[in-house]
Amino acid sequence: MTGGKDFEVTALNKVRQVSEAAHYDWETVHAVLDAGLVCQVALIDDDQPIIVPMTYGRSGNRLYLHGARKARVIKALAAHPKACAHVTLCDGIVIARSTFNSSMNYRSATVFGKPTLVEDSDEKLAALEIISEHLVPGRWREVRPSLDREIKMTGVIRFDIESASAKVAAGPPEDEDEDYQSAVWAGVLPLALRAGELQADPALPGPIDPSEACLALQGKTY
Amino acid sequence: MTGGKDFEVTALNKVRQVSEAAHYDWETVHAVLDAGLVCQVALIDDDQPIIVPMTYGRSGNRLYLHGARKARVIKALAAHPKACAHVTLCDGIVIARSTFNSSMNYRSATVFGKPTLVEDSDEKLAALEIISEHLVPGRWREVRPSLDREIKMTGVIRFDIESASAKVAAGPPEDEDEDYQSAVWAGVLPLALRAGELQADPALPGPIDPSEACLALQGKTY
Repeated sequence: MTGGKDFEVTALNKVRQVSEAAHYDWETVHAVLDAGLVCQVALIDDDQPIIVPMTYGRSGNRLYLHGARKARVIKALAAHPKACAHVTLCDGIVIARSTFNSSMNYRSATVFGKPTLVEDSDEKLAALEIISEHLVPGRWREVRPSLDREIKMTGVIRFDIESASAKVAAGPPEDEDEDYQSAVWAGVLPLALRAGELQADPALPGPIDPSEACLALQGKTY
Repeated sequence: MTGGKDFEVTALNKVRQVSEAAHYDWETVHAVLDAGLVCQVALIDDDQPIIVPMTYGRSGNRLYLHGARKARVIKALAAHPKACAHVTLCDGIVIARSTFNSSMNYRSATVFGKPTLVEDSDEKLAALEIISEHLVPGRWREVRPSLDREIKMTGVIRFDIESASAKVAAGPPEDEDEDYQSAVWAGVLPLALRAGELQADPALPGPIDPSEACLALQGKTY
C-alpha cells in the first residue's frame, strides 16, 4: 500500500492533514474502491453540495454508477462537469490516552472526475454487469438477462477518475510523550462490515438452495 | 420510524426515488445520525464538490464536527454558507431474482445547514465532549482533561440542521411479478459494522485492564 504517485498531487487531491496516511497510487485507490460496497457521491445543485449514497463498480481507472434514469443524482451528474465520489471503510476506533489523540482507523478513497451519461447500449449493459458483479460476484450469470425496458429505465454514469487520493490510517494510538506512563488503557477497537447468514425471501415458491454466488458472501468482511 | 414531517419537504431534501423509504421526522434522522460512527461531509471548493469523512456528535438538532484548526475542511466549512453531512449504514445486500431489482438495505441521513466555526471556548469544549462521547461513550471521564493547546489546535464546526431527510430500505427483494416463480434463490445478505475484541496498545507500560467504556463497545454492532 506504499506505491508511487500515479495521480499527480495537486491542490485538489492533496491530503493536508495526517499526510503520512496519504496515498496517490492507483493500487491503493483501487484497493479501497474494490473493498467498498457503497460510495458517497457529491454533486452541486444550486450552490448547495448534496451527498447521495450509490452502489458502483470499477473498471480500470473508471467508476460506473447507476440509478433510475430520471433520478436527480443521475441528471445532476450528467449535467455537471465535476463530481466527487468517496468510499470510507471503518477499520477501528483508536482509543488513545487522551481524547485529543483518539481517532479512527480507516481506509478511504476520494476520486474526482467528469461524470458522463452512458448512451451506448452495449457500454450501458457492460457497466450494469460491472456494478452487479461488484456487489455480488457471479450473480450476473445466475439470473435472467436484463430486459430492454430495465436497461432503458436505468441511467448509467461513466466516471473517469482524473484525480484521486486515498488515506489509510492503521495501528495503535499515537499519544503525547508524557501520556505513555498513564495508567489508562489504550488501544484499538477493531471494526469491520461483516456479512451474516443469508435470509431467504419468504416469497420463494418452494425450497430453493442459495446459489454459489450468494453462499460465497456469507461471513465475508468488508 | 414512521413519524411526521418535522423537516419541511422542499426541493432540497425531497427524496425523489423510492419515496416510500423517505422520512422527514427528527426521530428517524436523529436515530440514523446516532447509530453512525463516521459521516461524510461535502463542501464546495472552486466549484468542485469534495467529500471528507469526519467523526461527529449530535446535540439536539445540531451536529458538531471537528478537525485540525488549520485543516482545509474546517476552513472551507467555516467559510461556506451551505454544507451537507451524510451518514450511510449498510444493513444488507438485497439479492433479487434479477439484477435490476437487486439493491442494498440501508439507513441513511442527509442533513443540510449552515456550518459555523465555534469560537467560544466553553461551547468548544462541550462540543469536543459530545464528539468524544459519540465515539466512545464514557471515555471523556476516563482520560485526563483536554489541554489548552489541544483545544486551541482543534477547529470545531457547529452545524445546525435546517433541512434533512432519511431513507430506510429494509426487507426482502421486490421483484417483477413474473419473476416470483423463478427457480433462482432470492433473499437478503445481512450486513453490520461489528466491533471485535479490544487490541491493547503494545506501548502500555504494564498489564492494564481495559476500562469500562472500552469493554462496553466489544462486540457492538453499528
